[in-house]
Amino acid sequence: MAANIAVENLNPKVLKCEYAVRGETAIHAQRLQEQLQTQPGSLPFDEILYCNIGNPQSLSQLPVTFFREVLALCDHPCLLEKEETKSLFSADAIFRAEQILAIIPGRATGAYSHSQGIEGLRDSIAAGIASRDGYPANAYDIFLTNGASPGVHMMMQLLIRNEKDGILCPIPQYPLYSASIALHGGSLVPYYLDESTGWGLEISDLKKQLEDARSRGIDVRALVVINPGNPTGQIFAKDNQCDIVKFCKNEGLVLLADEVYQENIYIGNKTFNSFKKIARSMGYGEDDLPLVSFQSVSKGYYGECGKRGGYMEITGFSAPIREQIYKIASVNLCSNITGQILASLIMNPPKAGDESYASYKAEKDGILQSLARRAKALEDAFNNLEGFTCNKAEGAMYLFPQIKLPQKAIEAAKAAKKAPDAFYALRLLESTGIVVVPGSGFGQVPGTWHLRCTILPQEAKIPAVISRFKAFHEAFMAEYHD
Amino acid sequence: MAANIAVENLNPKVLKCEYAVRGETAIHAQRLQEQLQTQPGSLPFDEILYCNIGNPQSLSQLPVTFFREVLALCDHPCLLEKEETKSLFSADAIFRAEQILAIIPGRATGAYSHSQGIEGLRDSIAAGIASRDGYPANAYDIFLTNGASPGVHMMMQLLIRNEKDGILCPIPQYPLYSASIALHGGSLVPYYLDESTGWGLEISDLKKQLEDARSRGIDVRALVVINPGNPTGQIFAKDNQCDIVKFCKNEGLVLLADEVYQENIYIGNKTFNSFKKIARSMGYGEDDLPLVSFQSVSKGYYGECGKRGGYMEITGFSAPIREQIYKIASVNLCSNITGQILASLIMNPPKAGDESYASYKAEKDGILQSLARRAKALEDAFNNLEGFTCNKAEGAMYLFPQIKLPQKAIEAAKAAKKAPDAFYALRLLESTGIVVVPGSGFGQVPGTWHLRCTILPQEAKIPAVISRFKAFHEAFMAEYHD
Repeated sequence: MAANIAVENLNPKVLKCEYAVRGETAIHAQRLQEQLQTQPGSLPFDEILYCNIGNPQSLSQLPVTFFREVLALCDHPCLLEKEETKSLFSADAIFRAEQILAIIPGRATGAYSHSQGIEGLRDSIAAGIASRDGYPANAYDIFLTNGASPGVHMMMQLLIRNEKDGILCPIPQYPLYSASIALHGGSLVPYYLDESTGWGLEISDLKKQLEDARSRGIDVRALVVINPGNPTGQIFAKDNQCDIVKFCKNEGLVLLADEVYQENIYIGNKTFNSFKKIARSMGYGEDDLPLVSFQSVSKGYYGECGKRGGYMEITGFSAPIREQIYKIASVNLCSNITGQILASLIMNPPKAGDESYASYKAEKDGILQSLARRAKALEDAFNNLEGFTCNKAEGAMYLFPQIKLPQKAIEAAKAAKKAPDAFYALRLLESTGIVVVPGSGFGQVPGTWHLRCTILPQEAKIPAVISRFKAFHEAFMAEYHD
Repeated sequence: MAANIAVENLNPKVLKCEYAVRGETAIHAQRLQEQLQTQPGSLPFDEILYCNIGNPQSLSQLPVTFFREVLALCDHPCLLEKEETKSLFSADAIFRAEQILAIIPGRATGAYSHSQGIEGLRDSIAAGIASRDGYPANAYDIFLTNGASPGVHMMMQLLIRNEKDGILCPIPQYPLYSASIALHGGSLVPYYLDESTGWGLEISDLKKQLEDARSRGIDVRALVVINPGNPTGQIFAKDNQCDIVKFCKNEGLVLLADEVYQENIYIGNKTFNSFKKIARSMGYGEDDLPLVSFQSVSKGYYGECGKRGGYMEITGFSAPIREQIYKIASVNLCSNITGQILASLIMNPPKAGDESYASYKAEKDGILQSLARRAKALEDAFNNLEGFTCNKAEGAMYLFPQIKLPQKAIEAAKAAKKAPDAFYALRLLESTGIVVVPGSGFGQVPGTWHLRCTILPQEAKIPAVISRFKAFHEAFMAEYHD
């Protein structure tokens, strides 16, 4: 008998799940990359320019030296006993590694930790949060995770019983949310960010979508907010955040705050405020609002995607619910210790007076200032293309321009059985090697079309990205002109 | 309005899931550990002896030097440019780190990788598998994971549609399987390992349980085997493995082979054979049997639990099914790169002639020989306790003795609303500080009671573990004598 496994009898939730960031365009780009290696010169470009994924170090961003020094020392603590180490590593990296090893039971960086992560590292993360927000934070509330994604999955797994459980998500959204909701069999309840006001969030729309979902028998359990926004790049104003917090409290919703871009702020007149800080500043405490904040080592100026570190801070959950969260965490034993250490470092970077401070600050500022310049250059370039309109990237790592496509292009896409923006993105890739993600992967107002383009290509390559994009777009528009 | 979240309205699959390894006894041990710190002298022992979890480095096992040298160099590649590095690191560690960085695109250990893991590392793992088995292996079949657990979850997520989908699991089993099946809403179909023949697997029992499940309308989709066994420590004979492979082929089952203890072999006359090697030696190829082998950096002589590295090798799945597995992997982006590198190292350790070979071999042999001595000492000690019978630990990291408890003890457990073995384990912990996991967390023949005890305490501490255990047991038996 042949195995009884076939696509038709796999878990339908898996079949339903989609993840555009690593979807069709990205897979096609991998194929073209291989073709460039095996048959150089066979394509109209000589390299693939990845603008599809927030993966800075894959595009030559260097890691922050201090962080890597500490990681290396913790990976191989024998180094701390050697004299030569003092000439190879900065004194504060050595000191920090000693501090970290001292709080790890048995100095064992190769042991499973507590399922929430090493307690001393959670203490230092809590201290970092408290210093960021000006409100207390507690190691007991921190769950260290392999990047932010597993934390999101954990919360979806906890909250979703069946397709009648709904999660309010922004549209456009980062497809981790739609994928996780699909994998756990729930319903995504969309609310629309308003492109015309720079991707603003209107409480009246939130309210309308909630009521509409409830009238369809959906038990809406949580609200996802992404601030700074992905793919939209906006930073919420404080007043707006207060309204969101009030709304969640009034409607009995868990607030799931994706705050992984908290360090990626590119405009002077806006700052990041965590939702916990906002809630506490309104006088809301543990009993008022279940709130989860997700943070990751993958974003910010550090961009340490490959280390898979992150945490969630959970407040406002009862002890029996926390026990269930702990249980799910414990089934996976613990997150990786290197990522745990790195999460404690990004929340407690070198301070003025430390030996590494000047070089750390120069590296950090260099990265963030360059990202701001790249964001502005790409935004301006998009706004100069026929049919493109592009909001400012106030934060995060993306631009999400809207394209108005000619009717002929829409028909050609239809004939090719693709969404018009996916059709455009594939043509762009095949002509230029530039990889972007079609807006349809994130959700968009029906009848509108977008692309998500990261601001991450090396600064020296931005002019080439812009000129290749422009040449392609002009040819595309000429080909499909109405 | 207060939040509408309460334990009663959480996902019932989460509520149902149990994970004994980090369950009640382990949580109580954490509390006692805190008490020892805050109120020294308040308990009848002065340290907690963790025999509950396969976490060698938490019990002072040292990491293998060569592996950690390579990890430190890959974490901070700038070291490779410095002259002092040559006196701090072995030449082959430097060479290996250079090799690894050369196969990582952009030498970026801080970038997300391909969702299956870095291709060059998968190539080297495939080469390691091929050299172990004598049959070809392919990078395309390897999915690197954060330890073995996420791979198991991925397969359960893929295969389980609802409670009518069953997975055949050994009893006793490692509770990751029962937990994962519960979280994904399927049915665990038990088959019993035969304690009287050293935890042997009888195909006739497998067949009987399969038919019984089918008669109850269960669609049995896969068979889990753990070899060497956890918690049972047995190593399957080749003939037995052939029968298992044939059974899966004949019954159309996916074979999920947990092979994470492949390096933990303690008796001279048995060797590890992977199920893939067995299948290929029987002439079965890709079309005959869907087979998944799970491996981890957490076990073996390396014991690098905190690094969360591992892989699954999947063969015999059609392209459309593989696409679905790839999609699930891609939703979590990739596993951590440090763990990926370590997985490639354990499958390709230093070879005779390499500078580190002698020290590597001494470290490896030292650990494995000591584990074998500890296993034997504990086995003998258990077999000398009244009411205990204990099979040999042929492999893995555990002993799973059966205890015949007096009727009075069983009644006392009932009064305390605990399973008798859980009652015994808690009393043992409170009297001695020794933490073991009750057999009820793994499953056992109804009416029998067991404990899982790791063989991992430092060798110098084994006599103390044994004498404390013996004193407790004698007092316990005296207290509850029938």
